[in-house]
Amino acid sequence: MKSLCVIAGDGIGPEVVPVAVDALERLLPGLRTCEADAGWGCFERMGTSVPQATLDLMKDCGAGIFGAVSSPSHAVAGYRSAILTLRQALALNCNLRPVRSWPVISPQPNIDMLILRENSEGLYVGRERMDGEGRALAERQITRRASEQLAQRTAEVAALRNARRITLVHKANVLPLTCGLFRDSARQVLAQAGWDARVDERLVDVAALQLVASPEQFDLIATTNLFGDILSDLACHWSGGLGTAPSLNWGDGIALAEPVHGSAPDIAGTGRANPLAALLSAALLLRYHWQLPSLADQLEVAVSDFLKDAGTVDFADRTTRVIADGVLARLG
Amino acid sequence: MKSLCVIAGDGIGPEVVPVAVDALERLLPGLRTCEADAGWGCFERMGTSVPQATLDLMKDCGAGIFGAVSSPSHAVAGYRSAILTLRQALALNCNLRPVRSWPVISPQPNIDMLILRENSEGLYVGRERMDGEGRALAERQITRRASEQLAQRTAEVAALRNARRITLVHKANVLPLTCGLFRDSARQVLAQAGWDARVDERLVDVAALQLVASPEQFDLIATTNLFGDILSDLACHWSGGLGTAPSLNWGDGIALAEPVHGSAPDIAGTGRANPLAALLSAALLLRYHWQLPSLADQLEVAVSDFLKDAGTVDFADRTTRVIADGVLARLG
Ligand SMILES: CC(C)[C@H](C(=O)O)[C@@H](O)C(=O)O
Ligand SMILES: CC(C)[C@H](C(=O)O)[C@@H](O)C(=O)O
Repeated sequence: MKSLCVIAGDGIGPEVVPVAVDALERLLPGLRTCEADAGWGCFERMGTSVPQATLDLMKDCGAGIFGAVSSPSHAVAGYRSAILTLRQALALNCNLRPVRSWPVISPQPNIDMLILRENSEGLYVGRERMDGEGRALAERQITRRASEQLAQRTAEVAALRNARRITLVHKANVLPLTCGLFRDSARQVLAQAGWDARVDERLVDVAALQLVASPEQFDLIATTNLFGDILSDLACHWSGGLGTAPSLNWGDGIALAEPVHGSAPDIAGTGRANPLAALLSAALLLRYHWQLPSLADQLEVAVSDFLKDAGTVDFADRTTRVIADGVLARLG
Repeated sequence: MKSLCVIAGDGIGPEVVPVAVDALERLLPGLRTCEADAGWGCFERMGTSVPQATLDLMKDCGAGIFGAVSSPSHAVAGYRSAILTLRQALALNCNLRPVRSWPVISPQPNIDMLILRENSEGLYVGRERMDGEGRALAERQITRRASEQLAQRTAEVAALRNARRITLVHKANVLPLTCGLFRDSARQVLAQAGWDARVDERLVDVAALQLVASPEQFDLIATTNLFGDILSDLACHWSGGLGTAPSLNWGDGIALAEPVHGSAPDIAGTGRANPLAALLSAALLLRYHWQLPSLADQLEVAVSDFLKDAGTVDFADRTTRVIADGVLARLG
């Protein structure tokens, strides 16, 4: 019996997450779900953006879906974005971010790439300080262990999709030690897994340009935390923008699906939030965490068929309900 | 009398730089030029990628043009990219990177933005180390002083082009201290200069996506070193790619023009290097450093007219000479 921890969060989170849960319940009859709290609203109510109970439930379930959380516009003492805490506390060390063309809404038909973002370190370790001279300093940390873990995941995913190419993205010309450690550790693991002939490298600036100019050249991309953050946002233009960008925070035996978009306070409550990213994030849980690729295919085909039949790029006049019903109906 | 220090560097540097020097000599009769050495070839010959004589000549001249330098593929003890040394040793603390549409070669006609990249600190301070536990650590440094300097330059440039909007790009939701210091210092300077109503902000991931999805919305962008590196490479897609991407490393009373492209060892020696980025970098020297906007206009119009008359996007069959002659002829 599979269990799912539902963390709707703030803003449009509670509007899009139930759609994804609905889809999962149809595909996995008997799925057990439980709800957990996190985010800015939670911080205001309880003084913490991720209560211990939420972490415990996630661990019990082994799988979760997260909507979105708001951030205060200026620094609030003790507040840290809930998603960062969840990633760290649950050791969700890899972030899987696929970018592929969808019918009608994608600007180009031939994109199918997957970005694997290291999800635990880099500039995200939370070590910032002011020194005696008023300089602000932040530490970027790269370890062999985290780099190898990401490469291991990359090799697994590469095998699943019979990858033509794995591109390591770094900035080793300016950061030879940190980026060099990432690159060398990843290369070693990938070589051991038999992928050496298909591994190449790009500097992050060059990769950013090529992701705009010739995105079709990319297959798998593996990179460090902040580079992955930037490049995956950039690249999701090719799938149709943030409304269609899913992700999976992926640890060892535990995973948290997360649409890449934010809590969108400007449209929250209008019934116009796009649930596709949440639905596609649920598909990632199915494919990679639960290893049920044919159910993942069913969900993705339902999205694809819905888009084909809808035949318009304009989501402005489509409500969450219309999109949800359109996709759910196609799940049979 | 104006002087120019010519640092051709490696690869295609010595092929494109003379074209830009030629243009400057036509526009500034009596311009004094001197040559200086830097780069990987220089390192192999002299054991340093930037000899003291080069720094001295740059200081004497107050202005220079730099071609490109190669990097060894793996770490070489004592080697640091020449351009990084030049930026630091000469306090070229701001990097100006315009991105605008050109006739024929640009994918879209309505782009006209200018990215101001902090050029001295961030992750470029060169403070990397291994700690006792085998972790690689890099320090990201942000100071009020450098952030204010960049904002000051931004205000100057904003006045010159009567900017509609100044966008500060950062990642303060994850790096509240360093990015917060950058943002707050910049906001303060811009407010004092009367720009507060036109300043807004973007997170770097959001900015990257918007630079692909709706680049026409941007006017001036001011950001930290590595974000500027990534975003300016990405954005130059809209001007026609790296072949048309100029930059100006800009200090106090000293400036070094630099095409954004690299040394392109694959095409070096074939006579097919595109000199437009070098020519347009020379135009930046004219406009911003020497404050000769009408000469800068002349050079940019010559490029624009050449492209219009050439009427093709395909540079593969145009030699450096053909492009150079086409542009230079239009300078009269
Ligand atoms: C909300 C923010 C902390 C987060 C990140 O930077 O990782 C977001 O941009 C993402 O990509 O999930
Ligand atoms: C060559 C490299 C060190 C440099 C940088 O990262 O600044 C280059 O990418 C640039 O943008 O001028």
